[in-house]
Amino acid sequence: MPGNAFGHSFRITTWGESHGPEIGCAIDGAPPGMALSEADIQPWLDRRRPGQSRHTTQRQEPDQARILSGVFEGQTTGTPISVVIENQDVRSKDYDAIKDKFRPGHAEYTYWKKYGHYDHRGGGRSSARETAMRVAAGAVARKVLDHLLPAPVSIRGALVQMGPHGIDRACWDWAEIENNPFWCPDPAAAARWEGFLDGVRKAGSSTGAVIEVTASGVPAGLGEPVYDKLDADLAKAMMSINAVKSVEIGAGLSAAALTGEQNADEMRMTGDEVEFLSNNAGGVLGGISTGQDVVVRFAVKPTSSIRTPRRTVDRHGRDTEISTKGRHDPCVGIRAVPVGEAMMALVLADHLLRQRAQCG
Amino acid sequence: MPGNAFGHSFRITTWGESHGPEIGCAIDGAPPGMALSEADIQPWLDRRRPGQSRHTTQRQEPDQARILSGVFEGQTTGTPISVVIENQDVRSKDYDAIKDKFRPGHAEYTYWKKYGHYDHRGGGRSSARETAMRVAAGAVARKVLDHLLPAPVSIRGALVQMGPHGIDRACWDWAEIENNPFWCPDPAAAARWEGFLDGVRKAGSSTGAVIEVTASGVPAGLGEPVYDKLDADLAKAMMSINAVKSVEIGAGLSAAALTGEQNADEMRMTGDEVEFLSNNAGGVLGGISTGQDVVVRFAVKPTSSIRTPRRTVDRHGRDTEISTKGRHDPCVGIRAVPVGEAMMALVLADHLLRQRAQCG
Amino acid sequence: MPGNAFGHSFRITTWGESHGPEIGCAIDGAPPGMALSEADIQPWLDRRRPGQSRHTTQRQEPDQARILSGVFEGQTTGTPISVVIENQDVRSKDYDAIKDKFRPGHAEYTYWKKYGHYDHRGGGRSSARETAMRVAAGAVARKVLDHLLPAPVSIRGALVQMGPHGIDRACWDWAEIENNPFWCPDPAAAARWEGFLDGVRKAGSSTGAVIEVTASGVPAGLGEPVYDKLDADLAKAMMSINAVKSVEIGAGLSAAALTGEQNADEMRMTGDEVEFLSNNAGGVLGGISTGQDVVVRFAVKPTSSIRTPRRTVDRHGRDTEISTKGRHDPCVGIRAVPVGEAMMALVLADHLLRQRAQCG
Amino acid sequence: MPGNAFGHSFRITTWGESHGPEIGCAIDGAPPGMALSEADIQPWLDRRRPGQSRHTTQRQEPDQARILSGVFEGQTTGTPISVVIENQDVRSKDYDAIKDKFRPGHAEYTYWKKYGHYDHRGGGRSSARETAMRVAAGAVARKVLDHLLPAPVSIRGALVQMGPHGIDRACWDWAEIENNPFWCPDPAAAARWEGFLDGVRKAGSSTGAVIEVTASGVPAGLGEPVYDKLDADLAKAMMSINAVKSVEIGAGLSAAALTGEQNADEMRMTGDEVEFLSNNAGGVLGGISTGQDVVVRFAVKPTSSIRTPRRTVDRHGRDTEISTKGRHDPCVGIRAVPVGEAMMALVLADHLLRQRAQCG
Repeated sequence: MPGNAFGHSFRITTWGESHGPEIGCAIDGAPPGMALSEADIQPWLDRRRPGQSRHTTQRQEPDQARILSGVFEGQTTGTPISVVIENQDVRSKDYDAIKDKFRPGHAEYTYWKKYGHYDHRGGGRSSARETAMRVAAGAVARKVLDHLLPAPVSIRGALVQMGPHGIDRACWDWAEIENNPFWCPDPAAAARWEGFLDGVRKAGSSTGAVIEVTASGVPAGLGEPVYDKLDADLAKAMMSINAVKSVEIGAGLSAAALTGEQNADEMRMTGDEVEFLSNNAGGVLGGISTGQDVVVRFAVKPTSSIRTPRRTVDRHGRDTEISTKGRHDPCVGIRAVPVGEAMMALVLADHLLRQRAQCG
Repeated sequence: MPGNAFGHSFRITTWGESHGPEIGCAIDGAPPGMALSEADIQPWLDRRRPGQSRHTTQRQEPDQARILSGVFEGQTTGTPISVVIENQDVRSKDYDAIKDKFRPGHAEYTYWKKYGHYDHRGGGRSSARETAMRVAAGAVARKVLDHLLPAPVSIRGALVQMGPHGIDRACWDWAEIENNPFWCPDPAAAARWEGFLDGVRKAGSSTGAVIEVTASGVPAGLGEPVYDKLDADLAKAMMSINAVKSVEIGAGLSAAALTGEQNADEMRMTGDEVEFLSNNAGGVLGGISTGQDVVVRFAVKPTSSIRTPRRTVDRHGRDTEISTKGRHDPCVGIRAVPVGEAMMALVLADHLLRQRAQCG
Repeated sequence: MPGNAFGHSFRITTWGESHGPEIGCAIDGAPPGMALSEADIQPWLDRRRPGQSRHTTQRQEPDQARILSGVFEGQTTGTPISVVIENQDVRSKDYDAIKDKFRPGHAEYTYWKKYGHYDHRGGGRSSARETAMRVAAGAVARKVLDHLLPAPVSIRGALVQMGPHGIDRACWDWAEIENNPFWCPDPAAAARWEGFLDGVRKAGSSTGAVIEVTASGVPAGLGEPVYDKLDADLAKAMMSINAVKSVEIGAGLSAAALTGEQNADEMRMTGDEVEFLSNNAGGVLGGISTGQDVVVRFAVKPTSSIRTPRRTVDRHGRDTEISTKGRHDPCVGIRAVPVGEAMMALVLADHLLRQRAQCG
Repeated sequence: MPGNAFGHSFRITTWGESHGPEIGCAIDGAPPGMALSEADIQPWLDRRRPGQSRHTTQRQEPDQARILSGVFEGQTTGTPISVVIENQDVRSKDYDAIKDKFRPGHAEYTYWKKYGHYDHRGGGRSSARETAMRVAAGAVARKVLDHLLPAPVSIRGALVQMGPHGIDRACWDWAEIENNPFWCPDPAAAARWEGFLDGVRKAGSSTGAVIEVTASGVPAGLGEPVYDKLDADLAKAMMSINAVKSVEIGAGLSAAALTGEQNADEMRMTGDEVEFLSNNAGGVLGGISTGQDVVVRFAVKPTSSIRTPRRTVDRHGRDTEISTKGRHDPCVGIRAVPVGEAMMALVLADHLLRQRAQCG
């Protein structure tokens, strides 16, 4: 079974390479009778679009989504929604100089080992370009959640660490994430990151980051034990994003150092509602949502394509050096924020439909 | 689609509750003509079995696996391999006192929200008892890897942190993990943990842990871009284990703080072989194995069932307190080691079969 | 992906061989809170059980189903329902004389080509013994339909042709199917079949048959275009039953000879209800149920195991003859009736859950 | 799980409506390094294209396939192959007069019951237009078979019955199918059909047909017992084609009337090869290919869209009449021939990959 689809009851299949004519996806399982147009998708794509500040790649693409099927007279029909984006501003020539060399940290070597050959132009299928379709599909997933649930689910992402520099969680302000080019909720941290990232870029280097995505308003009861747990599917979803190296739910890695007393999210009644006094669980217990915020965090490694020369080998089995000149993000973590949000939306929409199937 | 199966080409479906008569699994996809008997499974189950030291639950069960199908005259036939284990020493009465109360951090509350009712005896389906079947199936997965690959794959797990206490990686010695009750590769750390865990247990408390699982000898080329990446499936596999709150591949979370130069695993030729000079990637690039060690780390939260009273609510919507008296592991991370190894084996076997389908 | 599972949202995985210790299945996706016990399953198994008349195999087995998981305090929990049946009265020795010979029409040759070796005792996994688990799972599927739908769905099967001898459809009386050993709705035909089948059996021969299964009360709207159509899944379900060689929906093969005017099921309003004036469609249009009776017919070939010697080859590549002496049904179509009913129930339950996921 | 995908290891997902801007599919699982271009697909699409004789719909479309991904420098990369076709010559206005009326035998009624609304223009998603993508994907599947197998597999379809008029099997000549507009292997029958179909068309009526598809050169061992049998998947594949009402394998329905002696395909050694003396099995035993020709037959009902008025109801619950004026095939069975061939290729390619996964 090939691996280009995600989800079961709400299922997307994506296709396309970085330097091909188009990329696209087929989104299957959306309920019928749901209002949908390109205007529902475009704002989310715009958030991911490169070239919006000096801190991301200067590739300029309108990334205009077109819906080719599944919508009739402004409403979903229940049949597959095909969304495509044309690739523009591809500079395949940028890659000619290094086409035989394996960039350390890049997928070229493994694609070559797996498939015997590969599309070297911009990473081909392994390019982060593919994540544009995740964002487009995620926009449809958000609509599904809105359409089916009595109250809105709010899915928001933020950059909480750039390189070694974290934020002050006490200063967290969601309103701030639109005010800086980093989706940073702590304005003081954002200010410091400007200079840090300028330095990284000018040095021809790159840096990693940590992203946190929160979904508020998720009803209790989503998630399928014991393998398709909500958190297991979130872990897969986030780890499938390019360059991600860790995923945490709630207290995450730090839970290892806690005692049972510290970690327990105690419960009290508030009127007829159960209230949790903390959220170390990150909104998931036994793989099923609790009704609290679902909180996921993931770390992104530094961009592999850097100007600083690195030792590597080429396709002919010769030692060589490589220095990547193209237009690359010095910190891919920034543009991973809307992608992480989209994956959260996709996982929730899928589990909502699965929950409806079995539990009504 | 319900969630009790794992894998695609090598696929397991598990069933059973902690306090039911039996637990079992159907393992489908193993190649025919492979020698297999209970003796291939039992040693791995024995490693996971409780009651082997004072540091794990005192529930005493032989956990004797029986193969009911799929093997004829000592060889696999290519049809489903059914493995069952009888539940013994179940003390369902232990749970009567708390049957209406939700243990903080436990799945009872979410099962109740999802399904409307649940088997309160020992956690029912949400119990870590289910992981015995993962270990049994993982033993078969190891056999599949051995049967199909020219050289053996070695899958080994270790506890690398207990509560706040880590190991000294410079002292890592795989031979040591059999010499202490913690699967700890650093004997000095293991000695310190003895006292620490005795204290935790006597205090009626519990503690978290971090487990690292390494697979050596994995051929390059396993993993299906772009959603069923090898690391994405490993993340799902590990996060689906009870109590796991984070998953990391290679450098993991720490990669966020690195520069591109530091993180790049440079490459050189050694004779005809490509050699990586480091392994921050954890053996996976672009979702596909590189041929280096595949390295996964996951954090386990402290056991939710503790003697210390915690505030909670009951099924009737009343505030109450809970103190769990049963026989619980003070650190579930210990027994999670063989489970993590098993999940690694299951993911690798599945991806090996998938690779054979497409790439021969 | 191996092939021992059926269904998506309501999914069964079966395991076990004819002459192994047990056969079983894991049934996943049943809604929680549904009353279920062995007493819901046993009557359906009893209908399929061999040895109830001189017209079926004389193998004597109680075929007692045991539920090992997924039910707590008499109600489904939403977790997998494991059902097992012990194999008794296996006479593996019966097969020793022919163990190296391929029975024409039997699966031994193809299992041997596919898997390299096989369990020759009673057909191993290819035996119709496996269909007992379909019947057990079908009983649970019937419960799911009853539990979720406002009005009952009635699923009934009948033998409509034995060998060359059909029934008179004008004499169809459902009440008659319990009054003869053939599930024949036409008593006059049933009487004729007695003598016919006695002759076949005494001659050491066998005969084919045609079965028709009808589901009444199926709501409109079940079925997933364009590949998982309701009728496509029914075709797969029925063709997957041992010895089935054709599947028809509604008018079936005879529709080829009709004109568009004849074939059209015209529609009229009866009060607020749409009424169809005929049912050539067999209750399915565009792959989706219309609300009319869903009607499926399938043909079963004559039993391959016959006493009359046939030319064949053996595993060593030598020409030989074979005559099968064991206890075989002279007409496997009889016991295929409850199996066909079960497959109808499984398909409907799966599609009902899938419909709930997307369309609520 | 929605239903717009087919296959597991070789998997297609199709999208698009009859009167939308484009239709397309994503083909996933093709081996890398396989030569592929539009020229491999176009000839098969041309065979299915309407408007090639007076006997099919006069809709004129070039049906030019474009490959948008998955191929680099003329070779497959192992990533999804996206194929699209632009819709041209759509006359949506043709449907305005009947947009509120349900055509008997058509999917409009059931789509409306399932989804609440539907695209009435040309049947939307339920249109046979979708089968163009099956043919495109089937062309890729044929390439996969050629690429992976040592000897070519020949997949050929023929019309063997039109309305009540069958062929003389003694006159079967594969070379004839290109010499008449019906893919008829019996030239005398084809000549008679010309006049018959002219009469049907002029009467504003329609007629059904029977198609037979044969695959020669299929290796023994393909098929996954016990649910994903090769014949079960073929039954699903064919029944999923628009208007199909029956599927038969080998002797099919007529096997019901045979004795065990007649039905048995006896075996003899011819040198080192096993030879079957007949092929009632249609090349499949126990769900697995025998190495003989795989033979599938399916019946297509007469086109539902006819000029002769029929009684029906409308969306507002009123009795009415309908007469369909558009450009419709008087016998959809003709164009179903290349579609049936394509489905055969898709099933074989999927099972070949699945066989490689488990059995190498």
